[in-house]
Amino acid sequence: MADDVVNLLSGHPPAAALPVQSWAAAGLAAARRYRGTPLGYGPAAGPAPLIEWLCDRLSRTDARAPAPDGVFVTGGASHALDLACAALVRPGDTVLVDAPTYFLALQIFADYTTDVRPLPADEGGADPDATEALIRRLHADGRRVALLYLVPTYNNPTGRSLAGERRAALVALARRHGVVVVEDDTYRELAYDGAAPPSMWTLAEAGEVVRVGSFSKTVAPGIRLGFLTAQPSFVDSLAARGYLRSGGGFQASALTMAEFCTSGVYVDHLAGVVALYRRQRDHLVDAVRRHLPGLAFDVPHGGWFLWLALPEHGDSVKLLPRAEAGGVSYLPGPRCFVDGSGGRYLRLSFSLLPPDVMAEGVRRLAAVLDG
Amino acid sequence: MADDVVNLLSGHPPAAALPVQSWAAAGLAAARRYRGTPLGYGPAAGPAPLIEWLCDRLSRTDARAPAPDGVFVTGGASHALDLACAALVRPGDTVLVDAPTYFLALQIFADYTTDVRPLPADEGGADPDATEALIRRLHADGRRVALLYLVPTYNNPTGRSLAGERRAALVALARRHGVVVVEDDTYRELAYDGAAPPSMWTLAEAGEVVRVGSFSKTVAPGIRLGFLTAQPSFVDSLAARGYLRSGGGFQASALTMAEFCTSGVYVDHLAGVVALYRRQRDHLVDAVRRHLPGLAFDVPHGGWFLWLALPEHGDSVKLLPRAEAGGVSYLPGPRCFVDGSGGRYLRLSFSLLPPDVMAEGVRRLAAVLDG
Repeated sequence: MADDVVNLLSGHPPAAALPVQSWAAAGLAAARRYRGTPLGYGPAAGPAPLIEWLCDRLSRTDARAPAPDGVFVTGGASHALDLACAALVRPGDTVLVDAPTYFLALQIFADYTTDVRPLPADEGGADPDATEALIRRLHADGRRVALLYLVPTYNNPTGRSLAGERRAALVALARRHGVVVVEDDTYRELAYDGAAPPSMWTLAEAGEVVRVGSFSKTVAPGIRLGFLTAQPSFVDSLAARGYLRSGGGFQASALTMAEFCTSGVYVDHLAGVVALYRRQRDHLVDAVRRHLPGLAFDVPHGGWFLWLALPEHGDSVKLLPRAEAGGVSYLPGPRCFVDGSGGRYLRLSFSLLPPDVMAEGVRRLAAVLDG
Repeated sequence: MADDVVNLLSGHPPAAALPVQSWAAAGLAAARRYRGTPLGYGPAAGPAPLIEWLCDRLSRTDARAPAPDGVFVTGGASHALDLACAALVRPGDTVLVDAPTYFLALQIFADYTTDVRPLPADEGGADPDATEALIRRLHADGRRVALLYLVPTYNNPTGRSLAGERRAALVALARRHGVVVVEDDTYRELAYDGAAPPSMWTLAEAGEVVRVGSFSKTVAPGIRLGFLTAQPSFVDSLAARGYLRSGGGFQASALTMAEFCTSGVYVDHLAGVVALYRRQRDHLVDAVRRHLPGLAFDVPHGGWFLWLALPEHGDSVKLLPRAEAGGVSYLPGPRCFVDGSGGRYLRLSFSLLPPDVMAEGVRRLAAVLDG
């Protein structure tokens, strides 16, 4: 992308949101508190101080907390998704993904199987009845459905959250059909208008849901730390994976994060970035309302993205080269659909750019749409 | 293991070999030099400053250096092995491993295929002619041989290095038969009696060898950093893997390592740990010669391990409970053979314990063998 193109494409944090000094200080403090422990081999599932903090944190941000043996610390949410696939997906299995969904997750599933399909969804997200009917048909055809992948809370790309009754219905159908829901809960902490809804994981009774969380949006992506919560037996099966048994967990990063979190720095830092992203969300919403008054969207109550519908017969893929020539970039909708549909939609990110730059990007997009 | 058992089993560094202060200082210095860059998303293959340093370092420790686009930074050598398997091994493929070999690598291969077999080896390591004959037979049987796994330099568990002519013959046969050698080069920097031999990777012409390296033995295992050197096209294929495209590389750890290395701290630290492990090697060798004069072994010129042959009909598996009851532990040979052979052998590690404790362990082992 040329330097003068306004980047409404990338879901990245701005430099100002990265805790450069406090992360370095946490490294020093971890070396004082834990001495050589952060540098030695650690448990594959992650060190106890971080796992205990995560359990406590989830007791505050979700409807219930996991037990420590139900938590596995990963090298980011993406690594958690990869581990979940390695555990759950055999070649040829069917993976059902939301429509639209997190576009970079599609390649993770494609690394494990050739059959990745959209599940039936409407404006409210995954449709439980239609999804159950699809699973019945797939099973009748002799297909094994390995998992359902959803981003139910502050969805990437739509910013929407799945209604509670749909969550419950999807967990129940997963239970009935022996399918695992992989719940990407990356944006839970980025809630701008009240608390995030309870995760689908809190509705699970016996391993129907593996929930994936991340420190990439709340602290920093370069640290590569995330986690998952699941049945203890599932956590044990991940810890038995060859390369994690051999190398152990991300001990140094994880104990630095434990220090960053238990010292209270995390909560203060999070309050700052939530306030920042809420302001940026408000500014992008204002700019779209002002400059693109004809286009429909839902105000996102959390996360990093705004999902915009072009006028009927609009085509965000065809539009993109003209938009980039006009000085603005975005993620075209079809990147977020495994079947390449969704041409009317596009995703704008409000995480990265200051308000005036975002507003200029939206003005440019309006000019391209007018032209 | 009970606290009073002398642990000659674990290949772990001692606390004194971990650079607790200098690693924390490198984190601060990296934050000053690179500001927010370590905390942001980085390239999947790793950040340029570390890759450039690795190329320079390998020009000094090996017979030739890779180009930067032939290096991929990983979450430790184990992660590199896992990535190599993900790229090279399909279910049902044959993986040939040295006999004996690094025991924890066996589970990594088992995660990818059911057919992991020993290659023909003698006291000098992998036998090229017999290995070629085996590959011909496997191919004639319609089997796909995905890779050959070797630890040719300061082998784990034997401490021996493969002779130059065997290295060349194995690389040539890999070329002829379209098989990839995965060369585990973890111990290259731990050379106690002169320079390590040139890697097999330096003999490769067109992608026959993927070489895996590690910072776990030279700096610290808890950091989880390693690397591989391979064809640029192979490096590109790893970077295209879904979870690495989505999450990017281990940016924060890798730029801290770049600072640790380019500042000169690495070389000073390495000199210290090499001197430490050389002393510990000498002490273990002395203790075995003194207390177990009848047992054969080669003096290891590098690495962390001494491979001991029991008297004929000795059985290191049966002996282990008695040894542990007698206050000493080791790795029984059969753990290092995929076919469970090697019962006469056992591995002693000299990385972890101070000389007097190691000597006490060897005395206890001698008492058990006498008893």
